[in-house]
Amino acid sequence: MPAAGSTMHEPVPIQELFGKAERLAAAFAETAVERDKAGGTAKAERDRLRESGLLNLIIPTEYGGYGLDWYDTLRIVRIISAADSSLGHLFGFQHLLLATVRLFGDQWPHYYRETVRGRWFWGNALNPLDTRARIVADGRHWLLHGIKSFCSGAMDSDQLVVSGISDQDGKLIVAVIPSDREGIRINSDWDNMGQRQTDSGTVEFHEVRIYDHEILRNPGPLGSLYASLRSLIAQLVLTNIYLGIAEGALTEARAYTRSQSRAWFLSGVESPTKDPYVLQKYGEFWVELNAASLATDHAAHLLDAAWQKEDELTAEERAETALATATAKVLATRAGLDVTQRLFEVTGARATTSAAGFDRFWRNLRTHSLHDPVDYKLLDLGEWVLNERPPVPSFYS
Amino acid sequence: MPAAGSTMHEPVPIQELFGKAERLAAAFAETAVERDKAGGTAKAERDRLRESGLLNLIIPTEYGGYGLDWYDTLRIVRIISAADSSLGHLFGFQHLLLATVRLFGDQWPHYYRETVRGRWFWGNALNPLDTRARIVADGRHWLLHGIKSFCSGAMDSDQLVVSGISDQDGKLIVAVIPSDREGIRINSDWDNMGQRQTDSGTVEFHEVRIYDHEILRNPGPLGSLYASLRSLIAQLVLTNIYLGIAEGALTEARAYTRSQSRAWFLSGVESPTKDPYVLQKYGEFWVELNAASLATDHAAHLLDAAWQKEDELTAEERAETALATATAKVLATRAGLDVTQRLFEVTGARATTSAAGFDRFWRNLRTHSLHDPVDYKLLDLGEWVLNERPPVPSFYS
Amino acid sequence: MPAAGSTMHEPVPIQELFGKAERLAAAFAETAVERDKAGGTAKAERDRLRESGLLNLIIPTEYGGYGLDWYDTLRIVRIISAADSSLGHLFGFQHLLLATVRLFGDQWPHYYRETVRGRWFWGNALNPLDTRARIVADGRHWLLHGIKSFCSGAMDSDQLVVSGISDQDGKLIVAVIPSDREGIRINSDWDNMGQRQTDSGTVEFHEVRIYDHEILRNPGPLGSLYASLRSLIAQLVLTNIYLGIAEGALTEARAYTRSQSRAWFLSGVESPTKDPYVLQKYGEFWVELNAASLATDHAAHLLDAAWQKEDELTAEERAETALATATAKVLATRAGLDVTQRLFEVTGARATTSAAGFDRFWRNLRTHSLHDPVDYKLLDLGEWVLNERPPVPSFYS
Amino acid sequence: MPAAGSTMHEPVPIQELFGKAERLAAAFAETAVERDKAGGTAKAERDRLRESGLLNLIIPTEYGGYGLDWYDTLRIVRIISAADSSLGHLFGFQHLLLATVRLFGDQWPHYYRETVRGRWFWGNALNPLDTRARIVADGRHWLLHGIKSFCSGAMDSDQLVVSGISDQDGKLIVAVIPSDREGIRINSDWDNMGQRQTDSGTVEFHEVRIYDHEILRNPGPLGSLYASLRSLIAQLVLTNIYLGIAEGALTEARAYTRSQSRAWFLSGVESPTKDPYVLQKYGEFWVELNAASLATDHAAHLLDAAWQKEDELTAEERAETALATATAKVLATRAGLDVTQRLFEVTGARATTSAAGFDRFWRNLRTHSLHDPVDYKLLDLGEWVLNERPPVPSFYS
Repeated sequence: MPAAGSTMHEPVPIQELFGKAERLAAAFAETAVERDKAGGTAKAERDRLRESGLLNLIIPTEYGGYGLDWYDTLRIVRIISAADSSLGHLFGFQHLLLATVRLFGDQWPHYYRETVRGRWFWGNALNPLDTRARIVADGRHWLLHGIKSFCSGAMDSDQLVVSGISDQDGKLIVAVIPSDREGIRINSDWDNMGQRQTDSGTVEFHEVRIYDHEILRNPGPLGSLYASLRSLIAQLVLTNIYLGIAEGALTEARAYTRSQSRAWFLSGVESPTKDPYVLQKYGEFWVELNAASLATDHAAHLLDAAWQKEDELTAEERAETALATATAKVLATRAGLDVTQRLFEVTGARATTSAAGFDRFWRNLRTHSLHDPVDYKLLDLGEWVLNERPPVPSFYS
Repeated sequence: MPAAGSTMHEPVPIQELFGKAERLAAAFAETAVERDKAGGTAKAERDRLRESGLLNLIIPTEYGGYGLDWYDTLRIVRIISAADSSLGHLFGFQHLLLATVRLFGDQWPHYYRETVRGRWFWGNALNPLDTRARIVADGRHWLLHGIKSFCSGAMDSDQLVVSGISDQDGKLIVAVIPSDREGIRINSDWDNMGQRQTDSGTVEFHEVRIYDHEILRNPGPLGSLYASLRSLIAQLVLTNIYLGIAEGALTEARAYTRSQSRAWFLSGVESPTKDPYVLQKYGEFWVELNAASLATDHAAHLLDAAWQKEDELTAEERAETALATATAKVLATRAGLDVTQRLFEVTGARATTSAAGFDRFWRNLRTHSLHDPVDYKLLDLGEWVLNERPPVPSFYS
Repeated sequence: MPAAGSTMHEPVPIQELFGKAERLAAAFAETAVERDKAGGTAKAERDRLRESGLLNLIIPTEYGGYGLDWYDTLRIVRIISAADSSLGHLFGFQHLLLATVRLFGDQWPHYYRETVRGRWFWGNALNPLDTRARIVADGRHWLLHGIKSFCSGAMDSDQLVVSGISDQDGKLIVAVIPSDREGIRINSDWDNMGQRQTDSGTVEFHEVRIYDHEILRNPGPLGSLYASLRSLIAQLVLTNIYLGIAEGALTEARAYTRSQSRAWFLSGVESPTKDPYVLQKYGEFWVELNAASLATDHAAHLLDAAWQKEDELTAEERAETALATATAKVLATRAGLDVTQRLFEVTGARATTSAAGFDRFWRNLRTHSLHDPVDYKLLDLGEWVLNERPPVPSFYS
Repeated sequence: MPAAGSTMHEPVPIQELFGKAERLAAAFAETAVERDKAGGTAKAERDRLRESGLLNLIIPTEYGGYGLDWYDTLRIVRIISAADSSLGHLFGFQHLLLATVRLFGDQWPHYYRETVRGRWFWGNALNPLDTRARIVADGRHWLLHGIKSFCSGAMDSDQLVVSGISDQDGKLIVAVIPSDREGIRINSDWDNMGQRQTDSGTVEFHEVRIYDHEILRNPGPLGSLYASLRSLIAQLVLTNIYLGIAEGALTEARAYTRSQSRAWFLSGVESPTKDPYVLQKYGEFWVELNAASLATDHAAHLLDAAWQKEDELTAEERAETALATATAKVLATRAGLDVTQRLFEVTGARATTSAAGFDRFWRNLRTHSLHDPVDYKLLDLGEWVLNERPPVPSFYS
């Protein structure tokens, strides 16, 4: 098996990558409940991801990566999220950040090669809605000053994608800097009800130097139709994390019903596996997860087609991908909330024990699903259906 | 354009068939409201379908048909159903009945050739849940006696697929007989709240002769794994009719909102096309119809793969197709009921005028969606998810 | 039993009035299906209502009426609506129009006495959202010119409550005029999918004289806090009609399931009355109808308290009544739509026969529930919960 | 203010008791988030409840209690549950256990007096579905041996209501014993995802002596129609806890939206308090909580009427109360799950911080709502609606 960082002469079969992902996921699952309780940084698991080489899935083979398309990359995000959605989140954002570099700046070949060589894990400090970080000119270079929230995976990262508001024109500047550059303080202050090992806390910047060549300027953030695919990748990463959570929840619920649950004493059946209402709920879970999966895979295929178009991408193609992505996001959010809430109705009161940790599915999904409101996805879709107005590219659509 | 019934040397491009279907649908749409009010037999429209050649979509080209797969055939069912779901129903059942002959009896090549040559429209008198028709031996041949309900399309049909309970062993016998055979009385007694031009009334059989070679015996009804695909085709025909209804409803609602509806006086917007709640509902419609469409198309592709396997079809493949079909059926039923009920909330009180006929969408879908209960589809899916028990082949699963 | 129109020296026991209403409802139910098909004016039934004296329920005994409170009056609206919601609508609007006269003008004692004496059935031509009717000064009197839509019960009425926009100040003027006054043309043009015998069509006014004393000017439309109760009465009349429809639907569904429906052949039970999914649905119907009934009765009691306060009514009391009314309206609309849609799932495919006419429940409710949007009721409630902003009195809140 | 345990000559005004409850609730709320994290026994808060005298609400004044009816007692359960549902649970079960003694055994006057005098907090070890505890004859007395699960409030209790299966006839025997009797081991093993300070773990019994006079034998568990009210009280206690949780969630959500949340950047409004979708959700919360509250209060009033009937209680009255109770339970469970899940959609991503502890509402409700399945409440209601079969008294209906 080619070690990450080596030059790969032979493409690795996809099956092998999936096998590796599944083995990692199985290992992560063993400690997921206790790590959820602990919170903090999943240092050991992050290192296993580094060693696995899976951080390079989306990097083309000519740059030393595995050259997977988004469809397969996202399926692996889903596999890891089913085992542990904090790790799935970090893993998915690795690929989102690689895509960000690819789409926003022409320096990406350098960063792709170095990612493979250095086994880099990328961290996020880009949150465009938090405008407290400013970037000011400092001779030929720049200084970043301020704070960013929701910086998933910044802790223990090798490189950071950062953003700040330009003092010159008030526009958002996005750049890449090493995580250990002087003046950066990554706080261990993420203590939320879900996604507890994503380190999605704050990063402080105290007059942090940014070299001019680190600015992602060409075409810049959302600087072209093609660059605006970044938002759709972000949305699909989230969607696959949600789906992964729901699939993980269903898997564990099913095992519990079969092995631990008891028939309700008034049900007239000897096992919950024969209870008409328990079966009905499992049927419902299947239906809604299937719908969400099909929509998510459909969007991923459209994304792959768009991704390959580069500057040939048309507004129509971008719109079609955006609509499919929004549709998948709505379906996955709803299916996930339903499965993670109602799994208790098919497992019973004893399944609320902390040892099982079943509430983590809901807490993780509920937390992450607030990234941006489903209501405004529906609004975008309604504008399209009723008014033929395609989604306006933004960091969220 | 090759006339139906002619020998086709050149396969007709699929686009041409879709174009023809869309033109027919547009023509049917013009009179759909008034024909819904009238009920009875859509004689003129049935004849246009006969003339169009579209009754032969699924018949292989070597037998003079168009050789379409199920995916495309069902999409055309959907197109016609969007314009007029009674006609979509009759049109869909034509293909279901052709499939029935193909799957239940080895005489099918004869019937396929004759269908093309005679421009036959097939009628249904098979209802397996109505056990009032009996078949008794009469020398080397047989006599059918009794009555069948829900005989969609029997009126004005050329051939009937009939069934009866054998006096010998109590089993269901299925046969093909000409609709004008002596002793058959097709009643014009379908007067229901929806699907009003499907003539889904009763057929009476008064000692009707069935020749032995008309019995579909090899392998017989559900007589093999392959033959059991018949039920899945039936379910997918229904599913596509439901989807067609919902798509038709959405199309008309949208046009109405844009051209006729008024903003609510307290909404603060000048047009309903800007009302946040109206847009939200259109977004919801989109999401649920997309989910149902993707699931339906997915099931159709699985059906096509299974259809081509013939006796190589495995139980696993059959199960996978059955599960996908049930999933699609549930999604389409629910999406359809929601869209046809709530379309009034995006069009307003004046859209209840009989001239618009918007209630027909709900009446049609509500009526046809009672063919078999969604609850038992969910039960089948639940048995699979929880107990790994695949759907047991029956006329409904 | 005191004849309507006579001077009543003894109050009639409420039980007697309910008994009379139930007998009338039973009679109306017998022809409800056929009259739904026919549409048009329910002349015979309207005359029976006139003869019954029930048109005077809300009129105080000192003016010759029965002096019922709103709680009981609305329960009788519900009883009649369960049998035939067109008649329930006309009957409910009779009381709404009597309340309108009481609340908007100081001439009401005259009209109350004359209503009893003349057995008047009141008709509606007030629709405040239709601004096509204008009122202009004509010496000491006035002329009404234009057209009004949704004029429920104008046909065959004795008196009309009309409205028009004043040419002087653009404000809405409301007046009472005899239905047969010269220049009024009541069109028989209501042909909608539901509430088919409410004659909710248009009324044309061709320079119709309105005497100055017929103007309801003191305090005028919504002219005081007390006068603004009119909207809440309108909303509660609607709510009770919806509830009545749902209760009628449930009653007929239940009888059908018990006597006509068959168990699904895969259910494993011999009767649909033992099917776990059928029972589940009946349980759901009960829960949602109970919730809606309790909320509706709660609002009616608040209304009665507010009604008795007259000019002592405080803004807080008005707000509390408005919030309870909006809550009841939302619950009744949703419960009703659910019951009338899903009743078919507990009765089965054969219950779609036109002879049963079960679709009328949904058509009636769907039609009438569009009077004003539920979304804006929810908005009102949300404003209250989140922002402590009480509903602003209007003709709809 | 009369101290608990004193002889009360003057009835305490209800307002005073509500005031005291609200002050206690406010104090409990201050530490609810940290105590949720800690789990274990809320010793200090339990002692404050003891000191408050509120543990005697339902005890008639002639026995030294406050003589409240169930309606007011349950409203106070709701108030405490809104602040901290673990404490609400313990407080509610205090009254359930007092009712159990009252209904199952004729020794209740003794226990009522001693409860007041000793400021007893009662603990539960009755779980009738856990059949691992056995009761055997031991001369004139009895020995209890085995284990019970879900023993809410056993820890730190003064008296225990216990149950065991009789070795003689396999029937359930219920008895009252002091919590410190030899052989009882109350385990601190409740570590579940919600209701974390209810100590709902196991109690072990090692040949624990039960004196014959401690057996609740007359009429015994569910030993009469009147005794069977115990189940309805249990259900209503749960229902009020659920409602309290939902009300607490709504209160905190509202404060957060108003003070902390930000408008979505694409919403076009400057504050989330003006966002049409945020307002819609608050409207929805109001509607469903109102419906559940009205149904719960209605059931409480029926319970009070039934409670006063004692042995005059008829089967019809018991059935009516049971149906109203089941209805309220379904509504409160659903409303509560919806509010506690969706509150995050009106507060936003930052509201997931552990400091706010908003997930505890869902975890508490989700955990407690599994006490017995909603599906079987709906089945009971369906049996009534469709088959006129009233709920069969059991420990759960």
